[in-house]
Amino acid sequence: MKKNTKVNAAILIIGNEILSGRTQDTNTSTLATWLNSIGVKVNEVRVIPDQEEKIVETLNVLRKLNDYVFTTGGIGPTHDDITAESVSKAFGIKYEIHKEAFKILESYYKPGEFNEGRQKMIWMPENADLILNPTSGAPGFSVENVFCLPGVPSIMKSMLGGLKHKIIGGDPILSHTISLKTVESEIASSLRKVQDENKDVEIGSYPFFHAGKLGVSIVLRSENQSKIDTCNNEILKFINEKKIEIVER
Amino acid sequence: MKKNTKVNAAILIIGNEILSGRTQDTNTSTLATWLNSIGVKVNEVRVIPDQEEKIVETLNVLRKLNDYVFTTGGIGPTHDDITAESVSKAFGIKYEIHKEAFKILESYYKPGEFNEGRQKMIWMPENADLILNPTSGAPGFSVENVFCLPGVPSIMKSMLGGLKHKIIGGDPILSHTISLKTVESEIASSLRKVQDENKDVEIGSYPFFHAGKLGVSIVLRSENQSKIDTCNNEILKFINEKKIEIVER
Repeated sequence: MKKNTKVNAAILIIGNEILSGRTQDTNTSTLATWLNSIGVKVNEVRVIPDQEEKIVETLNVLRKLNDYVFTTGGIGPTHDDITAESVSKAFGIKYEIHKEAFKILESYYKPGEFNEGRQKMIWMPENADLILNPTSGAPGFSVENVFCLPGVPSIMKSMLGGLKHKIIGGDPILSHTISLKTVESEIASSLRKVQDENKDVEIGSYPFFHAGKLGVSIVLRSENQSKIDTCNNEILKFINEKKIEIVER
Repeated sequence: MKKNTKVNAAILIIGNEILSGRTQDTNTSTLATWLNSIGVKVNEVRVIPDQEEKIVETLNVLRKLNDYVFTTGGIGPTHDDITAESVSKAFGIKYEIHKEAFKILESYYKPGEFNEGRQKMIWMPENADLILNPTSGAPGFSVENVFCLPGVPSIMKSMLGGLKHKIIGGDPILSHTISLKTVESEIASSLRKVQDENKDVEIGSYPFFHAGKLGVSIVLRSENQSKIDTCNNEILKFINEKKIEIVER
């Protein structure tokens, strides 16, 4: 029998603009959806400010607790972009000019445009692996199990394709959703029973209110399709008994 | 001279649906914006799963490091709503029926509708203070410096008004934004100089690409308006010298 393999990750969002409420983070959702699709479960997300000590300390906790850590933000050309230097400190390695990144950016920019600000983006932890950037040139990088991506959502997203072969996922996490025209309290005790009898399936219950509809989505998640199917059948059974309408499934 | 008072908080988002990427969290941005407006700086955000041990452990770290902790999620009627019980364990206090919450929900629902599922929502940490819910009845609660709110964004938001008198903020955090038609590398070294000379002002630089426009927003944040003004003047000076167009300020 094939052994289940579980692979997990943490996401570390670096940036004062998220903590001030000025910017709505969407990178968590993009990264989490992508990681799930390749069999990596996100254990935890942290959002922290652009402060070296905090970045170093948090990275050193997360990289030991998780198979992978993905950071976003702080790898641009300005003074508040301190992720690369902080990663170097977290690993206790040199922060230096990355020759391959230099070549990439030198040929990316027109002659004379590879100025001092842009040259900051070639400073990286020693021997970092580059993560290519098909959108705006400046690469991200990885050191051991820590992968550093930019904060601008469209650029970050465009770099995930190039990352895929570097991440070894476990069994894909499968998910099934049943949406009902009901309220949570109506199904709470039946659903708890199903959860108690199916401990390996993560059963979530989420009320929704949109487009004039009010209902509950039940989400079943597991690496094992047959366990999801068993749960699904038990849920369909009590839904049927309670004469609850299925909105979508 | 008036002494500056700084008050800080952490936000703890509880819910598997955020970690799976299924749901885009917006509560962080709503809470952070509101907290900033009443002089509370958000130090850190964490997103964790619906797991008792993880909630207890994380709460016990965050509540000691911060003046306030705000949690969202996990206070509904279903089996995966374990925030109230976890908060009780974190504080080492009883998890019991809250008499005031019972009265509120008993009169909120029509006779016969206050069923077993809904009665779960009156179980709270002993002597918790209620946070009233003008949208859907079921109250949130607080214990010492920990404030527990629901995960549904519209309900969560509707409860902030009732919380205001319970949170004592510090000096309001003022902010000023200058948006420029330029790229970050063009202003990076000048901006670093301004930051080095004005350590008390948090200067952020954020590229934007939207509606066909490409530019950079510089955000100045401080409790002190005159320090923001000084920074702003220094920035306007180099912008003027570099003949960079201001898009909006």
